[in-house]
Amino acid sequence: MTLTLETARAWYGSDDVVHDFSHIERVYHLAERISRAEGADLGIVRAAVLLHDARGSEAGSEGRDEHHLQSALFAGEVLANAGWTAERVEAVQHCIRAHRFRAGWEMPASLEAMVLFDADKLDALGAIGVARAYAYGALMGQPLYGQPSAGFLAEGHHEPDEPHTPVHEYFFKLRHIKDKLFTRTAIAIASEREAYLRGFFERLAAEVRGDL
Amino acid sequence: MTLTLETARAWYGSDDVVHDFSHIERVYHLAERISRAEGADLGIVRAAVLLHDARGSEAGSEGRDEHHLQSALFAGEVLANAGWTAERVEAVQHCIRAHRFRAGWEMPASLEAMVLFDADKLDALGAIGVARAYAYGALMGQPLYGQPSAGFLAEGHHEPDEPHTPVHEYFFKLRHIKDKLFTRTAIAIASEREAYLRGFFERLAAEVRGDL
Repeated sequence: MTLTLETARAWYGSDDVVHDFSHIERVYHLAERISRAEGADLGIVRAAVLLHDARGSEAGSEGRDEHHLQSALFAGEVLANAGWTAERVEAVQHCIRAHRFRAGWEMPASLEAMVLFDADKLDALGAIGVARAYAYGALMGQPLYGQPSAGFLAEGHHEPDEPHTPVHEYFFKLRHIKDKLFTRTAIAIASEREAYLRGFFERLAAEVRGDL
Repeated sequence: MTLTLETARAWYGSDDVVHDFSHIERVYHLAERISRAEGADLGIVRAAVLLHDARGSEAGSEGRDEHHLQSALFAGEVLANAGWTAERVEAVQHCIRAHRFRAGWEMPASLEAMVLFDADKLDALGAIGVARAYAYGALMGQPLYGQPSAGFLAEGHHEPDEPHTPVHEYFFKLRHIKDKLFTRTAIAIASEREAYLRGFFERLAAEVRGDL
């Protein structure tokens, strides 16, 4: 079996629009670009991208918190059945397990794992980051705009009656993504996308005031 | 009774995020700015803005198609009770009835009605236009991105299996809004906001291809 975007499509259901198959397609293109620039093993990276959210990645689903572990197990089955060596299967599984790295979780320890991690995070920045933040916000009932309080900006805690909005998501999470990436190629892409995202929210604030 | 944003808030329920009270606030600020530049009667315009969606404007609600008529009737009650003259009440009601002008509907016939129409439409453009298009799209289950077919671009008809997306909404509707406005001030604001919106969708396409 050759792993392609088309074979992978069958592993993804009709999830919410923030985690649908188009996310896989975008990460695939970014991961290929970063792999080429960084010299990563494209076969490992492609398989890891195609399988990294294949199980339980729906927002709010019961398995969401462990979807990286479930997807790694599923990847092991798929690739072993396809005749991959144990070593390459484990290389892909490591990428998938480490793609949600945070304190206390399995950290990317190979170039290929770093590429998957970085490409996945880049999809939250730039124009697609705006689209995803507003789509997700609407599904969660968030208002379109809110000025984050001083307390939120300093500590990340909402004041009483302070709703979470995509603007809050930007200040709390999205603007820091570029500082968490591993590869130089991804960091450069992230810096450019972050600048666009920052400009979007600055512009939005001016429009809300009626200045633009 | 003085009509203010605060008194108006009570007339608006917890509609969907695309038509919530923050829309009224944004239109209010824009309408004040356009009124000053164009020399419109601010008292008429402010009342018309605050009341223009006060009844039945929820997306998909039964009264959505006639919300301008219902809101005009409600405005008549509110303003007559507040002691407004019949002439000024009618001036506000005309603004509200004409704020959704299209072929065969009541057309804005006063400067104040043109200001409300224009300010209401401007809220679909610029960064806030992006936010609203994606919030609305997510609530309707639209994918984040789709390349419009040649047929859609030429005629506005979707091919079989061609989902509607915010990109389609831009090409079919949003990019033409600036050509439907009445006041020079609003047309200038719309041109700038439309350029930003066009840049957003061009950038999004490049990101989806993995080029940015």
